[in-house]
Amino acid sequence: MTTHYFTASSLDGFIATPEHSLDWLLKQDFDTRGPMAYPAFIEQIGALAMGASTYEWVLAHDEGWSYRQPAWVFSHRELPVPDGADVRFARGDVREVHAAMTEAAGDLDLWVVGGGELAGQFADAGLLDEIWVQFAPVTLGQGAPLLPRALDLELVDVARNRAFLCGRYRVLGAL
Amino acid sequence: MTTHYFTASSLDGFIATPEHSLDWLLKQDFDTRGPMAYPAFIEQIGALAMGASTYEWVLAHDEGWSYRQPAWVFSHRELPVPDGADVRFARGDVREVHAAMTEAAGDLDLWVVGGGELAGQFADAGLLDEIWVQFAPVTLGQGAPLLPRALDLELVDVARNRAFLCGRYRVLGAL
Repeated sequence: MTTHYFTASSLDGFIATPEHSLDWLLKQDFDTRGPMAYPAFIEQIGALAMGASTYEWVLAHDEGWSYRQPAWVFSHRELPVPDGADVRFARGDVREVHAAMTEAAGDLDLWVVGGGELAGQFADAGLLDEIWVQFAPVTLGQGAPLLPRALDLELVDVARNRAFLCGRYRVLGAL
Repeated sequence: MTTHYFTASSLDGFIATPEHSLDWLLKQDFDTRGPMAYPAFIEQIGALAMGASTYEWVLAHDEGWSYRQPAWVFSHRELPVPDGADVRFARGDVREVHAAMTEAAGDLDLWVVGGGELAGQFADAGLLDEIWVQFAPVTLGQGAPLLPRALDLELVDVARNRAFLCGRYRVLGAL
């Protein structure tokens, strides 16, 4: 069982603008059947975790809830739950949530959807195994950080998917 | 004549730690005869520009001055010049310096060595044509930013060079 942080990023390491916009990302050309694309990735995922900002972005922008997997949302606030969504709210230590996700996922893997701080908390606990980054061809200069930690990684795979430079990494530990 | 920003970066968009360390970079495996490597790149360069912090890093860490090309150093301070180095100090508008660099470079290209703010000033003036990034397999979480601007880019080339994920981009303009 592997815990992945799979995310798009600007070339300079931001996953959203300061205003939480992804317009710079969604305008890019991407082959969903190409390398390191989302449809093949999500097939192997049995449970997911996300922070409150990521969850609110999904609620505001996605047309309905697209995940079949149970999702743990880290939030100190009360947030709505879309029809048909299996959402469980959490706070505090990621280790307990990781154990519950592992139990729920069966033979499948876990996905930390974002943001970077939540992925960092999984890494702090030694529970983040892989990082997949799709770099969009933009710089943002400021915004929500990709992963606000100092980590040593190992490059496992490289691909180009149309406008995107993609890398897959194994997390080795603190830098 | 093309003006390049050729640099290594952490995966999360930092070109140095807050303490100006590159230890995380210099320990990585890289094939100097492989794709997007420095020796082939520097062959096409006729003049270079760097900020004061980059220049001071070179003075403190390199064994002698390795550049045959004239170098323009942007600095408000008096800084030493190594024996045999063709260093010209500059401040203010990058456009005048770019014109002088172009004149000096003849048929060759220009290299903005760093840091990110200086590359950003060239981009602001519409004088930055290409960005080459070699991503080292680390995150730093904080440090000197790769390029503190919002820019629209076009992915031109992708490569893996041992531990490094490499991308070459054309600068299209402001995002």
